[in-house]
Amino acid sequence: MSTPAFEYPLDIRLHDTDAAGLIFFGHLFRHAQDAYEAFMSAIGFPIDRMIRDGAPLLPIAHAEADFHRPMRHGDAIRVRVQVLEIRRRSYAIGYRFTDTAGGLMASARTIHVLVRTGSGQTRATGPLDEAGLTAAEALPEGLRTALCGWLEAPGGASPD
Amino acid sequence: MSTPAFEYPLDIRLHDTDAAGLIFFGHLFRHAQDAYEAFMSAIGFPIDRMIRDGAPLLPIAHAEADFHRPMRHGDAIRVRVQVLEIRRRSYAIGYRFTDTAGGLMASARTIHVLVRTGSGQTRATGPLDEAGLTAAEALPEGLRTALCGWLEAPGGASPD
Amino acid sequence: MSTPAFEYPLDIRLHDTDAAGLIFFGHLFRHAQDAYEAFMSAIGFPIDRMIRDGAPLLPIAHAEADFHRPMRHGDAIRVRVQVLEIRRRSYAIGYRFTDTAGGLMASARTIHVLVRTGSGQTRATGPLDEAGLTAAEALPEGLRTALCGWLEAPGGASPD
Amino acid sequence: MSTPAFEYPLDIRLHDTDAAGLIFFGHLFRHAQDAYEAFMSAIGFPIDRMIRDGAPLLPIAHAEADFHRPMRHGDAIRVRVQVLEIRRRSYAIGYRFTDTAGGLMASARTIHVLVRTGSGQTRATGPLDEAGLTAAEALPEGLRTALCGWLEAPGGASPD
Repeated sequence: MSTPAFEYPLDIRLHDTDAAGLIFFGHLFRHAQDAYEAFMSAIGFPIDRMIRDGAPLLPIAHAEADFHRPMRHGDAIRVRVQVLEIRRRSYAIGYRFTDTAGGLMASARTIHVLVRTGSGQTRATGPLDEAGLTAAEALPEGLRTALCGWLEAPGGASPD
Repeated sequence: MSTPAFEYPLDIRLHDTDAAGLIFFGHLFRHAQDAYEAFMSAIGFPIDRMIRDGAPLLPIAHAEADFHRPMRHGDAIRVRVQVLEIRRRSYAIGYRFTDTAGGLMASARTIHVLVRTGSGQTRATGPLDEAGLTAAEALPEGLRTALCGWLEAPGGASPD
Repeated sequence: MSTPAFEYPLDIRLHDTDAAGLIFFGHLFRHAQDAYEAFMSAIGFPIDRMIRDGAPLLPIAHAEADFHRPMRHGDAIRVRVQVLEIRRRSYAIGYRFTDTAGGLMASARTIHVLVRTGSGQTRATGPLDEAGLTAAEALPEGLRTALCGWLEAPGGASPD
Repeated sequence: MSTPAFEYPLDIRLHDTDAAGLIFFGHLFRHAQDAYEAFMSAIGFPIDRMIRDGAPLLPIAHAEADFHRPMRHGDAIRVRVQVLEIRRRSYAIGYRFTDTAGGLMASARTIHVLVRTGSGQTRATGPLDEAGLTAAEALPEGLRTALCGWLEAPGGASPD
């Protein structure tokens, strides 16, 4: 059975590169965010609406990327977005950046952690690490279910 | 004996934040790069000059960050730059982002890998991982020595 | 007779906005560049290839934008790209950012000026203003012809 | 009598440049914003505090830049910030980017327009142009006075 995957296309633009002629590493995360936002909209949880509605926020607590092959201005890239892991109050998203021949150019991973927003005025008054949150909190059930459908491999949610 | 450290100040600007009111995670890497460039200049290896002189490039093969506490517009931040590890063809740089009270807001790590540039026309024609490089390559001795002076803890360079 | 137009879609992402909840003004120019690159590819002059081939560069000598209505995270925007003016050694590109209802959110303009690159090593050693270039230089004929097909209104190229 | 000026230093970093080897034009506006924020703090109106306090916002309604000489990775730049014009509900800020020899590399101008924020929930519900605001609105007196001290030339505020 094939693993579900969401794909997002992008082109490497001039402003993605730097004077060394390659993509500037920090800009990869902007593209990861673009792919993540498109993915979240596709599964019914557009994050712009979540932020505007004052829903619990899911800021990024960890981000990382590996750069395998140089990406250059003009390269046509596809980002494959998958859910790597789901926990009680967090989940991990994976990104695989490939060129038109399918070669892996870079990969990235972001971990999103639920934070409760106090009065709604200040969205995240405490630390972003999970320790700062009360045990009662958990991912909204609908979001958890939607994410589960895109888990990279069968097995479902891990215990927190 | 205290560990040497290089410090770099920055202010969180409006464009560093997003509509959720916090720093956008990808922008942290831009600040890490700013701190890294200032550090490299301070130890005598300004990377603008290295790129212009056609010196072997040291692109980032891996980058990661942990976000501990929310950084907001107007926050005054200090970045502490240290050398975490030195290998034969690569080194790891660590970044600790603290607020004015010394609280750890975020930390980051970048791994820089030596790539030989073929004709000078195309700077990195092969994969950025070390496997794609010939065994003869190694960090320039002067750079290795300079980096060693900033290793986080006593012990010196690890074997490759 | 209708005026030809090239359209480019984009979504306002979280990183486009800032803590005031609106798009950060500087990021509009990144989107203008995205639209410009897509336009140049569509008319047969992809700028990545032009830069790689060492063709005469056409850096931006002037850029401006007017912000009419606030753009927010999640907004679906269309950019209409048109050629506003063609001169002997420069041309102006216009951008109209509209929302899904056709409302004008922002407009922008960039002026691109031909610069000869000396040895190929250093691409633009002199000032970017036209005065620094010799009178012999002119836009490549093929590019001029291609741009003329997208001039906003009938009339063709203006004298330099 | 000399004209007052606020100066802000910056270095052109790798991520400011693109594969053509020069600063990417859009990034100049990020530096202009950095200089503007430092200026506003220096005159007692830090914009992070203004946004957080729910003060009337002063978003940018117009921005423009002229690129005179190429800025490259490693260049040490000074930005001279001045108030170009003050109107009843808006003001214009000018930026002159010079290199260490005093050569003008680029200049920029931003126009900031007062917008009233309805309930405080949504900060700018209407168009950003002045027509959308009631006639009663005007720049806070303290801000106007502070800005007047930095007008480029003697003469004071223009009529609206």
